[in-house]
Amino acid sequence: MVRKTKIPETTITRLSGYLRVLDELERIGFDNTASYQLAEELDINDSQVRKDLSLFGQFGKPGMGYETTRLKKEIQKILGLTRKWRVALVGVGNLGSALLAYKGFKRQGFHIITAFDNDAKKIGRKKAGVIIENIVRLKQIIQKERIEMGIITVSAQAAQDVANLLVKVGIRAILNFAPARISVPKNIKVNNVDLSLKLENLSFFLSR
Amino acid sequence: MVRKTKIPETTITRLSGYLRVLDELERIGFDNTASYQLAEELDINDSQVRKDLSLFGQFGKPGMGYETTRLKKEIQKILGLTRKWRVALVGVGNLGSALLAYKGFKRQGFHIITAFDNDAKKIGRKKAGVIIENIVRLKQIIQKERIEMGIITVSAQAAQDVANLLVKVGIRAILNFAPARISVPKNIKVNNVDLSLKLENLSFFLSR
Repeated sequence: MVRKTKIPETTITRLSGYLRVLDELERIGFDNTASYQLAEELDINDSQVRKDLSLFGQFGKPGMGYETTRLKKEIQKILGLTRKWRVALVGVGNLGSALLAYKGFKRQGFHIITAFDNDAKKIGRKKAGVIIENIVRLKQIIQKERIEMGIITVSAQAAQDVANLLVKVGIRAILNFAPARISVPKNIKVNNVDLSLKLENLSFFLSR
Repeated sequence: MVRKTKIPETTITRLSGYLRVLDELERIGFDNTASYQLAEELDINDSQVRKDLSLFGQFGKPGMGYETTRLKKEIQKILGLTRKWRVALVGVGNLGSALLAYKGFKRQGFHIITAFDNDAKKIGRKKAGVIIENIVRLKQIIQKERIEMGIITVSAQAAQDVANLLVKVGIRAILNFAPARISVPKNIKVNNVDLSLKLENLSFFLSR
């Protein structure tokens, strides 16, 4: 078995960036893509592009660039985007409801299969085709539905408890929208999306 | 007039972090906060906390820490959170509709006053209390409504055009949800929220 190299976070983010550029280049009819095209769009050097890609194999021919569609598919494979992911969402408040209704996740292969809340008024109701389940049944349903990822959209105060619960039932990847830092064991991955933080940065900028 | 120091982006992000911790400490009854309490929650050193805050004035007494509520208010003031911001959203698709319905922005002082689209079927309709306007009227409405911030929720392909339009009518701060890099003049601030990117990072992690 090949030993898994530790891939820097910044490389993974750039892979997503390359994917977006390749998508666009494919759309407008570029059969071949040079590393400088990917580099320019991401404001980096060609050498960084080649270095990033070399971590995963040999995709282009020296001096020939990359086949756009092939490289796109390879990056999709690397990023785990050639399969469906089964996702559970916890916290069907405003943001949770909004994300349930948002079709962009599904388009990318992330299917929100089930949603949880602790509010008796919400439990049993359907939002965007997903039945809201009682959070006390989380373990049972997550295992039965073979859920692999969790999305946390509860309040800042409840976020850590929900994360603990998800980790306990075997979820290893969490997207956290609660404006709170949550701690998880080292083998679990949490990505934070703090919408308020992004707006606070803008209001800071406008206030100066 | 005091010369404005260039404040590092990381400091601004940490200010938002301090604010969240102070909020929580205030809620659970801490009248005073030590720099190490803020530091611990953010996984940084005390000295970083003191250095960040010193960029904006003298908030605590040496050896006494900070008054929780006062420091919270000061940081809110620094971040421009003690006033209302008038925001326009462009692109009332799935994500745009979701964000219109999301009440979290308003709670923080960011009021989406107006929304734009170019789809005749949507124009004139109301979503979450906001009338969807024809994008051709953007300039007129943004000026009349004294809009200060823009949220972009159009497709990747349309994002740059919308950004250009917003900049042209005087918007200086943009929150971009389109999975595309947009270029703006130096005096304009764009923050990107790429939800797919965060999910791609998780699927990469689970795929390894």
